[in-house]
Amino acid sequence: MTIQSNVFRGIEGVVKKVPLDIPSELGPKQVLVKITHSSLCGTDVHYIPHSAALGHEGVGVVEKVGSEVTQFKVGDRAGAGYLRDSCGHCDYCLRGQDIYCYERNVFGESDFSVGTFGDYYIGVESYLHRIPDNLSSEHAAPLQCAGSTVYSALIGSAKPGDRIGIIGIGGLGHLAIQFSAKMGYETVVFSTSADKEAEARAFGASEFYLLSEPEKVTKPINVLIVTGSRYPDWAKLMKKEILARGATIVCLSAPSAPIELPSFPVFFEIYNFKSSLVASRGIHDDMLRFAAHNEIKPVIETFSFTEEGFAQALERLNSGKLRYRGVLVA
Amino acid sequence: MTIQSNVFRGIEGVVKKVPLDIPSELGPKQVLVKITHSSLCGTDVHYIPHSAALGHEGVGVVEKVGSEVTQFKVGDRAGAGYLRDSCGHCDYCLRGQDIYCYERNVFGESDFSVGTFGDYYIGVESYLHRIPDNLSSEHAAPLQCAGSTVYSALIGSAKPGDRIGIIGIGGLGHLAIQFSAKMGYETVVFSTSADKEAEARAFGASEFYLLSEPEKVTKPINVLIVTGSRYPDWAKLMKKEILARGATIVCLSAPSAPIELPSFPVFFEIYNFKSSLVASRGIHDDMLRFAAHNEIKPVIETFSFTEEGFAQALERLNSGKLRYRGVLVA
Repeated sequence: MTIQSNVFRGIEGVVKKVPLDIPSELGPKQVLVKITHSSLCGTDVHYIPHSAALGHEGVGVVEKVGSEVTQFKVGDRAGAGYLRDSCGHCDYCLRGQDIYCYERNVFGESDFSVGTFGDYYIGVESYLHRIPDNLSSEHAAPLQCAGSTVYSALIGSAKPGDRIGIIGIGGLGHLAIQFSAKMGYETVVFSTSADKEAEARAFGASEFYLLSEPEKVTKPINVLIVTGSRYPDWAKLMKKEILARGATIVCLSAPSAPIELPSFPVFFEIYNFKSSLVASRGIHDDMLRFAAHNEIKPVIETFSFTEEGFAQALERLNSGKLRYRGVLVA
Repeated sequence: MTIQSNVFRGIEGVVKKVPLDIPSELGPKQVLVKITHSSLCGTDVHYIPHSAALGHEGVGVVEKVGSEVTQFKVGDRAGAGYLRDSCGHCDYCLRGQDIYCYERNVFGESDFSVGTFGDYYIGVESYLHRIPDNLSSEHAAPLQCAGSTVYSALIGSAKPGDRIGIIGIGGLGHLAIQFSAKMGYETVVFSTSADKEAEARAFGASEFYLLSEPEKVTKPINVLIVTGSRYPDWAKLMKKEILARGATIVCLSAPSAPIELPSFPVFFEIYNFKSSLVASRGIHDDMLRFAAHNEIKPVIETFSFTEEGFAQALERLNSGKLRYRGVLVA
């Protein structure tokens, strides 16, 4: 017995809605979710040429649960993100760092037939996320990856008293500013565009500087979160007036070219250079509660849950006009 | 009134013992130390061409104290290291991170007339270090910088359960192995020389590999401490079989060329790249107690406290034959 579903995937570079039959008999821990909202992330775009099933920022309503499921019941809302499963017994899983698990099942790395752009999504109970009541599904969708990523970066590097720098105001950046501000941090935003100052301040930025003039910052930053797909000019930023001695630099995207860092400031100012992935599950759940409690909302544009809707959202994203996350609504 | 002292400094590239009169009237917080032991660090060698007073790994006996000194009395042993003073009120000093203080007085950065290679050393009370009774002065001297540096790197990055990798068995490395082993860590040593295996194991290494064959490691490392003056081939090491996902890489010396890191492993294996300086004062004191309690001793060669003795120690260091720290004994 199967359920007629479908999935959005690239066919010769164009995203099509392709029929996909999924088993109607669920495994004991599985949950069948009828997707209502799925938002578009830059990572989806990378996988269009590879024909992978798209979507890892989805929210829907539980339609059926496996025999051993205890955490969801029919009618509950559930969120599905980047992480879909992990081994449960490795060094990382045992320490709650399931996103580091070498046997993990994540979007883009394994199981290319699963995505949240489709009618149905089958998830594993403990890898789906409850959506707090006062968080709408359309706002919850972009939090499943973008929100999770910026929250995890903040949690992993910042502590009360720190000044947080955020480079870039886009899908990730506009959420990083909100989370940082609501955590009480002095939040210093750098952008290439002066036009974005008012918006950055509305999100909670306490200071705003052009990325070309970082030396204008009034007091050095302790944690710098680099959003966006391009790295800044490190030598220009790695100065004691801009980045405090011992500052941590957290990059949220990977360039393909080697990373070249100026040696002396890295060494003598003791800068800590690292990346950060999407959150592990426990932190992801914290993020959703934090967002709901503090009324953090992604800025979204909505589109129909169709090939045309996807194409429109993609065009807005690729043209750099999307403010800031495109959500397909069923 | 002055005291006739002297200091070792480079004169046209050759280290000479140069007369230096120091004031016999001490400031209220100052301590006059008659140096008995001073050891040679690679950093001293860098400053020979600059004619700076040399020495930042010194131990001696207190000969006189200023009017407000309470922590040392005449006859006590005192250690003098890299950090000679700090502002006491900045963001770093207030948090015990005095080595980060922008107003600090450290060897090689300010006050080029002060060094521990000389008859006398005037230090500030709370920037001198008590030497535990069961630690000899000749062994305590190299701990003032080399010991402090490796201990601080371990304290700053490792936690129980971690596997610690150490690259290099020299002035820093041979102490890093001992501290790591005595802290209970699985201690994995990499060296370019197979001849050093027995010695590494005697220092406490639980595993030993040639740096050219890091893939032989049986389980990935969580913290990699890079001693020695050259950086390894990062691409060869940055593999999940060698460095665990989320591993921290701590470099203890600064190359002059830019640092080039392979982008994908840094990002997708979430490696954390950083440097580490000599310890702040509180950690320095902990290090001395830890070394004394656990009978950690630098391996030393002793020389006379003369121009000839210095020249001999320097020659051994520059030729790579020194095992592992040269101590001038007065």
